[in-house]
Amino acid sequence: MRLVRFGEAGRERPGLIDVDNVLRDLSGEIDDLAGAHLSRAGLEKIRRLDPKSLPKADPSHRLGPPVTGTTNFLAVGRNYAEHAAETGSDVPTEPLIFNKALSSIVGPHDDVVIPKGSVSTDWEVELAIVIGERAHHVSEAEALDHVAGFCLCNDVSERDWQKNRGGQWVKGKSSPTFGPLGPWLVTPDEIPDLRAVDLWLDVNGERRQTGSTSAMIFGVETLIAYISTFMALQPGDVITTGTPPGVGAGMKPPQFLKAGDRLALGATRLGEQRARVVAYSA
Amino acid sequence: MRLVRFGEAGRERPGLIDVDNVLRDLSGEIDDLAGAHLSRAGLEKIRRLDPKSLPKADPSHRLGPPVTGTTNFLAVGRNYAEHAAETGSDVPTEPLIFNKALSSIVGPHDDVVIPKGSVSTDWEVELAIVIGERAHHVSEAEALDHVAGFCLCNDVSERDWQKNRGGQWVKGKSSPTFGPLGPWLVTPDEIPDLRAVDLWLDVNGERRQTGSTSAMIFGVETLIAYISTFMALQPGDVITTGTPPGVGAGMKPPQFLKAGDRLALGATRLGEQRARVVAYSA
Repeated sequence: MRLVRFGEAGRERPGLIDVDNVLRDLSGEIDDLAGAHLSRAGLEKIRRLDPKSLPKADPSHRLGPPVTGTTNFLAVGRNYAEHAAETGSDVPTEPLIFNKALSSIVGPHDDVVIPKGSVSTDWEVELAIVIGERAHHVSEAEALDHVAGFCLCNDVSERDWQKNRGGQWVKGKSSPTFGPLGPWLVTPDEIPDLRAVDLWLDVNGERRQTGSTSAMIFGVETLIAYISTFMALQPGDVITTGTPPGVGAGMKPPQFLKAGDRLALGATRLGEQRARVVAYSA
Repeated sequence: MRLVRFGEAGRERPGLIDVDNVLRDLSGEIDDLAGAHLSRAGLEKIRRLDPKSLPKADPSHRLGPPVTGTTNFLAVGRNYAEHAAETGSDVPTEPLIFNKALSSIVGPHDDVVIPKGSVSTDWEVELAIVIGERAHHVSEAEALDHVAGFCLCNDVSERDWQKNRGGQWVKGKSSPTFGPLGPWLVTPDEIPDLRAVDLWLDVNGERRQTGSTSAMIFGVETLIAYISTFMALQPGDVITTGTPPGVGAGMKPPQFLKAGDRLALGATRLGEQRARVVAYSA
């Protein structure tokens, strides 16, 4: 299934995209894509519905992030060896985990805002995991039982704030609009091989990033099991799994986003994001 | 005002402690201590109520964390020079900010659980800020307009996970029960001088930490203004402002929490927490 949330920011309704790519309204069935609706039982209830029986919704609706009720927005650093190399960093020996503020989350096609005072806003196309059921001390074998699905994420990053402002990366990862998610929450059955998801990102029509999850150092199951030793992951939590090479900071000379740029990114079965880059305004 | 949330975990009701220290039920007036109820206007509405007109509640109720709807649980590292020194660290030149998982938050007297596999669970008494209104690019002069109040926080920490597991501190700060908050959300008018809050913490009746916010390197207004340049803080967000000296990691030899220990901590006008330390059980 491809699940979405559509409508005005902060007032989205749940929906799904049917096999004919028609947007259907789920708000008569569930209140939102959050909490218990993300569990295996909750998703199975949605799966048993006949999509054709659901009201069609206007396809011109804005899409929001495809999940809500998130309590942790975690990200994995340097999870592709070539990306670690382009940033001049060693490959980590265990997963490097950092936080993005929940208030950075926006819809897949919403404008990306260059923060006030930023000089190095960068892009990162990633596969993100959406947690479906509480996960604390789960094994790798159990990990996928705790997953609602996957979505595309642009882990937008202010490199100077990330690297030079005091050690912890959260400062450079958290500005409003730094976490576009979607278009869809794709259930695990739609992705037969988590190690065969191709990722790409263009800036102004030029290809910048190309990669495949086959090159991930720590896979999805490993990441969930690992993180669940340190904290109790909750339904709706998002773990974005790291970016392949091709970020702006790795270019010679480095190149960063500026107002007016157009971003396009996508991944196998996860859909595409198309966003404008705009200047901050109060 | 001293505001509380009382009742079973996950089903708390809002309340207040009146001048005679009687617990009063606010659930007929507001749904919870969250969102718009934390704004200046929201708190003013509560202030205008006659506490004696509110139903008394059974004082034996469990107290929960005194705020909910939190989207960021942020903490400040090394914000007291003597604590930086006892951990063998330099004093930061700008605030060091890290995350605690929201799922670490518990009530003030709830058990503190030693995580599975932990060998170095430590204590940190702190003054925590509760955000009342969205704060993005606010000045130090404006900062307190965005504050709902303050509460006591024990920033429980697993030192090995914090320091030796990959750079970012979130791993050592996020286990369930690592964020006891409360007993009360104390509105700013109750604390005439934010630089004169005394803090203390005992383990098994022995004084371990003693300090005063007069020794904070970065004060409350500075922290809010600073963090608001990197992210948009939301109502209900919690910023715990760092700990004075006396943590277990700084003792010679280091001493950490073990099942059966009794924790007591408090701060001027913020009340006290009393918690048992217990072993993890699945």
